[in-house]
Amino acid sequence: MLTYSATYTDQYQITMAEVYFLKNRHKKKAVFDYFFRKSPFNSGYTVFAGLDTLLDILENFSFTDDDIDFLRKQNLNEDFLEFLKDYRFSGNVYSMKEGEVVFPTEPVLTVEADMLDAQLTESILLNVLNFQSLIATKAARMRQVAGDRGLVDFGLRRAQSAGAYHAARAAVVGGFDATSNVMAGKDFNIPVSGTMAHSLIQSYEDELTAFRHFAEIRPHDCVLLVDTYNTLKSGMPNAIKVAKEMEAKGEKLKGIRLDSGDLAFLSRKAREMLNEAGLDYVKIAASNQLDECLIKSLNDQGAQIDLFGVGTSLVTGQPDGALDGVFKLAAYDNEPRIKISESTAKITLPGQKQVLRMTDADGTFTGADVVCLNSEEQPERMFHPFDKLKSMRVKDFLKEDLMQPVMKAGRRLEAPKELVSIQEYVRQRIAKLPGEYKRFENPHIYKVGLSEQLNGLRNTLIQEHLDNL
Amino acid sequence: MLTYSATYTDQYQITMAEVYFLKNRHKKKAVFDYFFRKSPFNSGYTVFAGLDTLLDILENFSFTDDDIDFLRKQNLNEDFLEFLKDYRFSGNVYSMKEGEVVFPTEPVLTVEADMLDAQLTESILLNVLNFQSLIATKAARMRQVAGDRGLVDFGLRRAQSAGAYHAARAAVVGGFDATSNVMAGKDFNIPVSGTMAHSLIQSYEDELTAFRHFAEIRPHDCVLLVDTYNTLKSGMPNAIKVAKEMEAKGEKLKGIRLDSGDLAFLSRKAREMLNEAGLDYVKIAASNQLDECLIKSLNDQGAQIDLFGVGTSLVTGQPDGALDGVFKLAAYDNEPRIKISESTAKITLPGQKQVLRMTDADGTFTGADVVCLNSEEQPERMFHPFDKLKSMRVKDFLKEDLMQPVMKAGRRLEAPKELVSIQEYVRQRIAKLPGEYKRFENPHIYKVGLSEQLNGLRNTLIQEHLDNL
Repeated sequence: MLTYSATYTDQYQITMAEVYFLKNRHKKKAVFDYFFRKSPFNSGYTVFAGLDTLLDILENFSFTDDDIDFLRKQNLNEDFLEFLKDYRFSGNVYSMKEGEVVFPTEPVLTVEADMLDAQLTESILLNVLNFQSLIATKAARMRQVAGDRGLVDFGLRRAQSAGAYHAARAAVVGGFDATSNVMAGKDFNIPVSGTMAHSLIQSYEDELTAFRHFAEIRPHDCVLLVDTYNTLKSGMPNAIKVAKEMEAKGEKLKGIRLDSGDLAFLSRKAREMLNEAGLDYVKIAASNQLDECLIKSLNDQGAQIDLFGVGTSLVTGQPDGALDGVFKLAAYDNEPRIKISESTAKITLPGQKQVLRMTDADGTFTGADVVCLNSEEQPERMFHPFDKLKSMRVKDFLKEDLMQPVMKAGRRLEAPKELVSIQEYVRQRIAKLPGEYKRFENPHIYKVGLSEQLNGLRNTLIQEHLDNL
Repeated sequence: MLTYSATYTDQYQITMAEVYFLKNRHKKKAVFDYFFRKSPFNSGYTVFAGLDTLLDILENFSFTDDDIDFLRKQNLNEDFLEFLKDYRFSGNVYSMKEGEVVFPTEPVLTVEADMLDAQLTESILLNVLNFQSLIATKAARMRQVAGDRGLVDFGLRRAQSAGAYHAARAAVVGGFDATSNVMAGKDFNIPVSGTMAHSLIQSYEDELTAFRHFAEIRPHDCVLLVDTYNTLKSGMPNAIKVAKEMEAKGEKLKGIRLDSGDLAFLSRKAREMLNEAGLDYVKIAASNQLDECLIKSLNDQGAQIDLFGVGTSLVTGQPDGALDGVFKLAAYDNEPRIKISESTAKITLPGQKQVLRMTDADGTFTGADVVCLNSEEQPERMFHPFDKLKSMRVKDFLKEDLMQPVMKAGRRLEAPKELVSIQEYVRQRIAKLPGEYKRFENPHIYKVGLSEQLNGLRNTLIQEHLDNL
């Protein structure tokens, strides 16, 4: 298990909190939104993940005595340090469901709390949600092309330190079946998977004896790695020999694994060899620098692979490595707030908001979400957030309210969900997303617009700032 | 603090360990090498990092009762589970120094241990060394172009979950001065840095009051963020006003920070405005999606930046995201072992080895390391590891032995080093590396060759395997 104290944060959250505290602004109500500006991997959608992890962290968010002693060295006020000693997060959180299919610009999660509380959550919130959403999105793309074939996380050795732990969780959210990571399997109730590496085979004088020993000790769970010396001339014949010996004892070889070479060619050859030996029940697993494009290409080539083991590209979210999510102040002391920027796309959305997803009668997403103030009635039109010439009528669509309360006064409103139920939610939601938003090349852009009231409020605040310059 | 149990591993390490244990092979002596095949970022060198972290983990490597209960569900033998209950790592480790400048193909670290011990360390060893070496290399490249300007890690919010923690450590190894990450600062004794975000300024009706409040509470450590509304028309004039008010109280504004827009242009303008106001002591910090190429470009443009805050590209090691280090069996029961592969570059180096770095009389690296068997005398020639037509005479060069014992029977031989001393070692070693290996575009390839004896042993083992097919 990994545990964080509240010092898993950026130092400036602490120095700002000190200013709020000493200027008696720390109890003022604030609203902060979590949103991102660009889906990773040029994907047409992002899978929102990490919510349950975040809520767990917020429920236990506190400073140890050791932490306070360390902070004292940063020249912080003693009354403030005393305050931090007993600090617990006591805010409210509104959020889309974990596993929701989400899009750039729209708020995905909102923290409504005392200014100090909200500020102190920023770093850990971004750390958790950005990373798990990145990995869940990567995993969902792989699930999209893998169909009902097995997908197993093999990434621990190339993961970014303890990042492997939450990557394993997020991979299951996105559609993975299992992980090689024992700690993640234990803590998140994920099936763990793994049999042998080349080192076991190399440690024997010959491959056949290595296979036999493994099959003898683990007959219920035997996947033989066949590429240590030569896949078709040595690994496969030896695996078939052992499979037949297992049959004679009433046991069944579960599978063989390919970890190098031309996986499309080798898997077809391996399938032929197995079938000719009457071993059509033996599965073929493959690994070696896979990603969603290679999985798609292998399937397009008619590769005979039943299970894909995916490492680096999954757990490090290659080629992007990070989701660019931010956490921005939208209201302070019940007044809407905005951040102006020379880059229009960085201007924020003021006020406390709701997101409405428009659907057809059968629940299919129509391709547009409306962001509105949470005080308003059903909006009639939505406006492009940056292009003032674009708007569309939205009155007649069915709409789902996507943001719901998930934490009140620092306590979660529902127990954590099983990962498989979050995974099932992802599956259902992606099924409602039309194909043009899911293709890998130039996916259609899902529209996110502003209600007339929100658009008007933003324009007013921008004008006020321009007038002040 | 992050703590791992021995379950932060791949499941196959456990199933293989079970086979070794039940076949009574677990006490056989094994030698495994850690090496990588390609430097990240098309860099001409890699900085080896994470050794102290790894040695700490190995000294405390054990399974909890909880872990054993979980493993029992994976159908493992009871005698083996009983053995794991009291398991501690008791092997020897030979390694290059943390901070060494290292190159593809050569062993960087060797574990000599009981087969089971060595096997169980693989996943965590790769996880720790691959990631920290990736980040230390990235940081060293930034230090190369930053000269003596400040470099601060701002990456927590975009880091891969708890990866931020070890990224902060590795960044200092590579040459960073400080981190925003409070937990990493506390645990690794790294200076922490951070003052204010946009949210503080947005929470006020006006920027000037926000600046004044901050300067009042933290006069000793005041860096004002000037781009919330308009850098040159609002942020800078307000910052200068506050700096003058501070002067009147005998205080000094430490700096201003730019976080958007054209940093080269804005920093020059900001410098002019500060100097004209007699504030030449006020430093300029800049952040916003920086990496080593942008830092170089900013300096080339005459940007007036004293301190760079670097986030995503540093802590996630963009654009690569992972070092491809592997851990391969080189000897078992005192016999050299090899892994054959259809891809020549994946054929491993057998036996227990030493790496010799050839230097000039003044210590400058000549551009070639020789890998030899650790039993042999000074080699006379070295051979290209893959191209049989290439060899060179090495007899007359001065040579440093790079691999040294660092752990014996599971106990480290030296206390952990202070990060700053590892950083200083990196600085010294990079200074000895000629410029052509350090340039970003098409760096010269540092030669890594095999001694005649090692080359001969490898050829013999390859031939034996070919004869068996």
